[in-house]
Amino acid sequence: MRITGEMLIGSRTVRGAHGTIRAVNPATGEEMEPAFGGGSNEDVDAACALAGAAFDPYRSTSSEVRAKFLEAIAQGIMDLGDELIERVMSESGLPCPRIEGERARTCGQLRLFAAIIREGRWLNVTIDPAMPDRKPLPRPDLRSQKIPLGPVAVFGASNFPLAFSVAGGDTAAALAAGCPVVAKSHPSHLGTSELVGRVIQAAVAACALPEGVFSLLVGDGNAVGEALVKHPAIQAVAFTGSRRGGLALVAAAASRPQPIPVFAEMSSTNPVFLLPEALTVRGADIATGLVESATLGVGQFCTKPGIVIGIEGPAFDQFSTSAAAALKSKAAGTMLNEGIHKSYRAGTAALSRETSVHQIADGQPPITTACSAQAMLFTTSAQAFLSTPQLAEEVFGPAALLVSCKDEAQMFAVAEHLSGQLTATLHLADEDLAIARQLLPILERKAGRILVNGFPTGVEVSHAMVHGGPFPSTSDSRATSVGAMAIERFLRPVCYQNFPAGLLPEAMQDGNPQSLWRVVDGKLQQG
Amino acid sequence: MRITGEMLIGSRTVRGAHGTIRAVNPATGEEMEPAFGGGSNEDVDAACALAGAAFDPYRSTSSEVRAKFLEAIAQGIMDLGDELIERVMSESGLPCPRIEGERARTCGQLRLFAAIIREGRWLNVTIDPAMPDRKPLPRPDLRSQKIPLGPVAVFGASNFPLAFSVAGGDTAAALAAGCPVVAKSHPSHLGTSELVGRVIQAAVAACALPEGVFSLLVGDGNAVGEALVKHPAIQAVAFTGSRRGGLALVAAAASRPQPIPVFAEMSSTNPVFLLPEALTVRGADIATGLVESATLGVGQFCTKPGIVIGIEGPAFDQFSTSAAAALKSKAAGTMLNEGIHKSYRAGTAALSRETSVHQIADGQPPITTACSAQAMLFTTSAQAFLSTPQLAEEVFGPAALLVSCKDEAQMFAVAEHLSGQLTATLHLADEDLAIARQLLPILERKAGRILVNGFPTGVEVSHAMVHGGPFPSTSDSRATSVGAMAIERFLRPVCYQNFPAGLLPEAMQDGNPQSLWRVVDGKLQQG
Repeated sequence: MRITGEMLIGSRTVRGAHGTIRAVNPATGEEMEPAFGGGSNEDVDAACALAGAAFDPYRSTSSEVRAKFLEAIAQGIMDLGDELIERVMSESGLPCPRIEGERARTCGQLRLFAAIIREGRWLNVTIDPAMPDRKPLPRPDLRSQKIPLGPVAVFGASNFPLAFSVAGGDTAAALAAGCPVVAKSHPSHLGTSELVGRVIQAAVAACALPEGVFSLLVGDGNAVGEALVKHPAIQAVAFTGSRRGGLALVAAAASRPQPIPVFAEMSSTNPVFLLPEALTVRGADIATGLVESATLGVGQFCTKPGIVIGIEGPAFDQFSTSAAAALKSKAAGTMLNEGIHKSYRAGTAALSRETSVHQIADGQPPITTACSAQAMLFTTSAQAFLSTPQLAEEVFGPAALLVSCKDEAQMFAVAEHLSGQLTATLHLADEDLAIARQLLPILERKAGRILVNGFPTGVEVSHAMVHGGPFPSTSDSRATSVGAMAIERFLRPVCYQNFPAGLLPEAMQDGNPQSLWRVVDGKLQQG
Repeated sequence: MRITGEMLIGSRTVRGAHGTIRAVNPATGEEMEPAFGGGSNEDVDAACALAGAAFDPYRSTSSEVRAKFLEAIAQGIMDLGDELIERVMSESGLPCPRIEGERARTCGQLRLFAAIIREGRWLNVTIDPAMPDRKPLPRPDLRSQKIPLGPVAVFGASNFPLAFSVAGGDTAAALAAGCPVVAKSHPSHLGTSELVGRVIQAAVAACALPEGVFSLLVGDGNAVGEALVKHPAIQAVAFTGSRRGGLALVAAAASRPQPIPVFAEMSSTNPVFLLPEALTVRGADIATGLVESATLGVGQFCTKPGIVIGIEGPAFDQFSTSAAAALKSKAAGTMLNEGIHKSYRAGTAALSRETSVHQIADGQPPITTACSAQAMLFTTSAQAFLSTPQLAEEVFGPAALLVSCKDEAQMFAVAEHLSGQLTATLHLADEDLAIARQLLPILERKAGRILVNGFPTGVEVSHAMVHGGPFPSTSDSRATSVGAMAIERFLRPVCYQNFPAGLLPEAMQDGNPQSLWRVVDGKLQQG
């Protein structure tokens, strides 16, 4: 498939006339072919108007039709073969096995949502049969189901060119729910985005769906994104990226005449708590695992463990020494783009400047690629951490900060001090359970996922996964952007009162023609 | 129980020193005893700090403990007997049977949420067992459940002094979820609020719960409410009232360093569509029912049908004549307070001034009470309605606007023109099903509840009810403020990865000790 540098607006391809953008190979710093034309407000209007027009017909398709559509997208992505893998590698600097794994995950997400909509619990069908003889007043017949919100704007992430991008988890969940998607290409992965976007465009046609089900826009800077979020047809926004970017979208959505929800996954330091006995009995192993997790993918995961909290003493000293030794051997790696590389250098430089912070190790020096980053390990005291707010900020990249507490009480204080997180991790041995039980209620208030004796990188796409958390890790702690529950972001309930059979949507009809799980008179039942 | 004019801050009673407020009897205009002291920022701080401190211990109580607590509140409200009924009547101008009905509903809501938390589906327990041998990577053990958001600020409604107030649906749902509540008394129902607040305070003590589980603040103007919404301990806000008030709370919550969700139920005109055949065969009956619904409780329901849409012709003319005749016999009624009365007079005066609007009937003239309001019926053309945005605004009170369309296409255009609604209603006969099927997709996008051949006033408290809808009817269309699903507003999911049995919350433990419905490996099962 040829990459042309065009946008995809419904079934058309449109060359943007609003400036020219090129992807840059972060390993070489070279601009890549072809040039992409940036979109105008008119292009945004055209894509959104098509999405609005497609909404009713698309949401009225059967779950089976939409499931097959999602599966067709997955197959189309696999069919791109090495062309896709090579383009992603060039645009992201990520290595081949990582991209192949991410491609498998992306297709797995699409197939998971296909299975979810076929299964039907997402409709949340609830029926309260009429009670005509109830006193003092009869009860009407009340039936409710979830319906989709409307067209969704999707902003891809820099760090997952496939799994959190054009056909990533947000798009898969929105399309599964019955929402058309207008995606904006991440400027770092313009070619990847076009390749995947064309797969979706082809799947829309192959499945005989309305063309407005999917569009893909291109734009440098914020203009296209802001116009997209402010377009009246758009009813929800999904975003993964920086806190600044996420908050700008939240503000734009809130300033609309009709405000809409924004699901922004923004920033997280993913604190790791090392409990005393675990530190004593296997501190060296934890240190190795931690460094592995913090430097994986050049530290460019939302769930990278950035802050590590222990209680001062010989075991923590030994842990720090082990971690420093492990980190020293880590090769420098190419970051995703120049902006991220610059932010990483600024973030680590700011840490270095803090008098209360000491750098205890750095990894192998940068290599000759343009965006090469060196791993770094810092330490500070809990006292300094508690009194210096900027130490609790995310540094995106292969760096971590060890925080040494005087005692358990100070460890609890550090936990309370943390802002909202995607994850929190406990390393514990049996003897640590009492402390863990005191920490757990604090961490439940702070994080969307809590791990024991593991590391937070590696987010399973499954039914129980929560990839979300209190602000500022996301803009809505009630939602997850990974896993089956991600579909709920794009749904709202509607109640149908005293509907005649001939007008009632099938999922709620007597006799349960779709054999759904339904709540009838407060009791869950199937078939 | 004596009404003292004090606030309830945890287990204490506190006389506010920040100005003096009195409830006013809307029937007489007389200020009522006693005087209430307004709260200060320190009082807000004290209540919120107690709520924050109570959160972890309260949410760790069993569902059974919280269910008994809700039932104790319901019993306490009944035990207040006539003292409560009389105070509500004096403060609201509402008649005794209505108050008794509302009391029954309030207690029913508390008992419904007790049943819901005992049943346990609200926890949404989901388990993905570990797959240690999976290739290329093992799957960890992942288990998730919902936990409460944190302390909730509750703002009572003017029009439901019991059911949407201190111990109303928002409080019941929040307490059921495990969230402490800090309520603010509605200035119109200060005595009612204190009576009910003392019942909750006593139930907290009787159930040996932390005192911060409930506080009740008093304040004139916006200062106490704004301080409450901005307090860092508060994690969600529930509000029922005007659009102006709701949007102010949404803005305050969004401007916090940590933004929080606001569930504001604001305004709705509850359009009623009269389809041709139904209008022909039973227009007169519909007219009588409509006037009954629009004037019920002096038109002071969120779900009052305020806009009635039909297609011009003899049947619609006859309907208008019948509705006008029915309305003329309607007695004037005392509105809830002077502010609402004033807004009603301003709203109807503004309609009267529109050259495209004609008043076709008024009810019996105002009686001698201070806040007496006369019912009014207006007509306009669809063309005027579509070109005059203010005609689509809610007029809170016993008024309705009939909108005559040239044809079906114009009726669809009026439907598309509507903003978000709590309800939409279709009156139809069998022959109207084809039109209804064209209207339904539009109305699903516009409203949270769609009724056939009924009237929207009267909101059942049940499992399938949705009392919510797209903006501006509420600030979050994904939520309902009435019915079982209302608890979901105050919950968020947390995932537990590779937890040892000794640390895992009971609901997710192996063997399902609480016999909950759980999703295991994507399949729903019980026990």
